[in-house]
Amino acid sequence: MLHDLKPYTPGEQPRVPGLIKLNTNEHPLPPSEQAVEALQGITGDALRRYPDPDSLGLRSAIADAEDLSIDQVFVGNGSDEVLAHIFKGLLTSQERLLTPDITYSFYPVWAALYGLPLVEIPLNPAFGIDWQLFLEQPGAILIANPNAPTGRALALTDIVDVVTSNPERLFVIDEAYFGFGADSAARLVPSTDNLVVTRSLSKSHALAGLRVGYALASPVLVEGLRRVKDSFNSYPLDALAQAAARAAIQDGQWFRNGSAFVVRNREALASGLEGLGFEVCPSAANFVFARHPGFAGAELFEHLRQHQILVRRWDKPRIADYLRITVGSESDCRALLDCLAEKIGGEPRSDSESP
Amino acid sequence: MLHDLKPYTPGEQPRVPGLIKLNTNEHPLPPSEQAVEALQGITGDALRRYPDPDSLGLRSAIADAEDLSIDQVFVGNGSDEVLAHIFKGLLTSQERLLTPDITYSFYPVWAALYGLPLVEIPLNPAFGIDWQLFLEQPGAILIANPNAPTGRALALTDIVDVVTSNPERLFVIDEAYFGFGADSAARLVPSTDNLVVTRSLSKSHALAGLRVGYALASPVLVEGLRRVKDSFNSYPLDALAQAAARAAIQDGQWFRNGSAFVVRNREALASGLEGLGFEVCPSAANFVFARHPGFAGAELFEHLRQHQILVRRWDKPRIADYLRITVGSESDCRALLDCLAEKIGGEPRSDSESP
Repeated sequence: MLHDLKPYTPGEQPRVPGLIKLNTNEHPLPPSEQAVEALQGITGDALRRYPDPDSLGLRSAIADAEDLSIDQVFVGNGSDEVLAHIFKGLLTSQERLLTPDITYSFYPVWAALYGLPLVEIPLNPAFGIDWQLFLEQPGAILIANPNAPTGRALALTDIVDVVTSNPERLFVIDEAYFGFGADSAARLVPSTDNLVVTRSLSKSHALAGLRVGYALASPVLVEGLRRVKDSFNSYPLDALAQAAARAAIQDGQWFRNGSAFVVRNREALASGLEGLGFEVCPSAANFVFARHPGFAGAELFEHLRQHQILVRRWDKPRIADYLRITVGSESDCRALLDCLAEKIGGEPRSDSESP
Repeated sequence: MLHDLKPYTPGEQPRVPGLIKLNTNEHPLPPSEQAVEALQGITGDALRRYPDPDSLGLRSAIADAEDLSIDQVFVGNGSDEVLAHIFKGLLTSQERLLTPDITYSFYPVWAALYGLPLVEIPLNPAFGIDWQLFLEQPGAILIANPNAPTGRALALTDIVDVVTSNPERLFVIDEAYFGFGADSAARLVPSTDNLVVTRSLSKSHALAGLRVGYALASPVLVEGLRRVKDSFNSYPLDALAQAAARAAIQDGQWFRNGSAFVVRNREALASGLEGLGFEVCPSAANFVFARHPGFAGAELFEHLRQHQILVRRWDKPRIADYLRITVGSESDCRALLDCLAEKIGGEPRSDSESP
C-alpha cells in the first residue's frame, strides 16, 4: 500500500532571512489581536487537561457567524484533515469522484489513499467549469471555489442550480479561499442534504500556523463526519487552537478589513502584472495565476528565485507556463513587479513564441 | 461504511466547578514552565505563517532526549493520530493484528476503520501477557506497556526476546504511559527494523491539552509513516504545539520530578485502597486499577459520582467490577479514599459475593 502512495507536496517553507515568500498563500497581515490575546489566557492548568473533544465553543462561534446551528458545523485540524475525513467517511461510498483536471493537487492523493476512483473533468480553455461535462456522468462532485491554483470563482446561481436539481448526488465545495470575493455556498446548507462546504482559517483569518478548518453541512452529514473523527482521533484540536480560532471567528471586523486589504492589493498586483504584458486569470482568491506570452514559466520562476522571491509553479500540462503568486504586502508585491520588470524589459523569450 | 463504525468513546470531559476529575489520566501537576513560556514567544506573524510541516525542531529535541537520530522520530497530533497512521500505513499490509483482550479500547476501532482483522489474545487472570499465546499465531503484535486500563508493565527482557527472535513480525509497543515505572523499549529501536514505540506527551509531560504524540522506529518505518502523513495532512502540528512540546521535552528536570511525584502519590493511593480492602493491580502508570471484593464496580462508581468524583469503569467481561482511578493530587486522592471509606464502612455488598 505504501509504495502506491504519491504524497502531496506542499509549497516550500524555507526559513531564510530576507526571503519574500509568495508561494503558499499566507495572509499579508498578522491575525486578529483578539486571537493572539486568547492564547495569553491559556494557563498550564488548561494545558494539563484534555481539550473539549467536541470543540463546542469554536463550533458555536462558527454557527453564529454563518447563521447555522452547531450540528451543521464540523471542525478539524486544518481543512486538509476535514477533507480527508470527507473522503473516508462520505466519498468512499460513492461510485466515483469527479473533480476538475486543474485543481488542488491533494484531491487525487486522498482518492488514492482511500481507494476511491477519481475522474478528472477538463476545465475550458479559460479554466472555467463546464457543468454539463460533470453532470453527464455519475459520481460525487468536488470543486474548489474559488479554484486553486487558478483563482477563478463559480457563479453562485450555477451552484444553487446543480446542487438543488441533483439531490441524489453529493457535492463538496472547497472554500479554502473564502472571503476574497467568491460567493459562498454556505447559505444552501440549511435547505440541502447533499452539500458539504469546507473552509480553512489559514487564508481567510491569517492563521495558517494554527491548523483549523471546518465543514458546513446537514446534521446527518456532520454526524457521519463525527463518526469518522471519533474513529480516528477524539481530540483533533488542541486547547490553544480552539481558543484562538474562536476569538478569530468572533472578530468579524478583522475579517472584513483583512479581506478588503487583500482584495485591494490583489487588484494592484494584477494591474501591475498586466502592465508588464502578463495574462492574469480573474481571481477571487488571495493569489493570482498569470503567464507571460514572451517567457516560459520556469524561466520567470527561476529569475524570481534567484532574487529571493518565492512563487509557486507546477510542471503540468496546460499550466506549466503559469506562476501562482500570493497577494503579499504592498512592498512584497512591488518587489515582485520590479524583479519581473527587470527580466521582461531586458531579455525577451529566445524562441519568441507564446506557449 | 459509516454504519459499521463503532467510534471510540473517550472519558467524559465535563466542566463542572468542584468536580474531582480522576477519569482521564491527566497529570496532577501543571506542565513545565518552559513549555508555557515557549507559547509566549509565538507572535501573530508566526501564526500567519504555515508551521514547519516536518516539525524538525521538535523531532530533533525528541531524538536528543532518546539518543536517536531525527529520521528515527515521527510526530503527530497526539499519539492517537500516530497510532491511526501506523494502522493505515504499517499494519493494514499485515495478515492480521494481535492485541490483548483487555487493552486500550481504541485499537479495535482503528482496525475496523481500516478493515484490518484483529484477534484478541486473552490475558492471564492476573492481567499478565502470555507471550506463547501471541507467538503461536501469525500477525503483527500491538501491546500497550504499561497496559491500559490495568497499569501492568511488561518485563523489558521479554520484549527484547520476542522482538529480536521474531524479526519477520512487526511489533508496536504503545508507551502512552511512559515515565511512570515501565522500562521503555526505545533502546531497541537502533538495532531493529520490526519495532515501533509510540509515546504521548499527554500523560508524561502534563500536556493533554496540546495534542502531541510521537513514534520511534527505524528510518524505513518512519519514512513509511511520513508517506501516510503527507497523504493525509501535511501540517499535523500547529506552531504553538511544536514550540511548547519542544520546550517540554527539553526540560528533563520537570519530567523527572513530575514522574516521581506521580509515583509517590500512586503508591500512597494504592496503599490507601488496599487498606479499604481493595485488590489493586500493580501499576506502572499514572492510574490504578482496583476492585473491592465486597462491592460491585458500578455501585462504587455511582457512589463516587454522586459525590462529584469521576473515575472510569467499563461494562465489559472480566473488568466490570474494576475502577480505573487516575493518580491525582494528594488532596484529590484523599477525597477519593474518604468517599470510598464512607461507602465501604457503612454498607456492605447486598449479595455478599465476590465477583
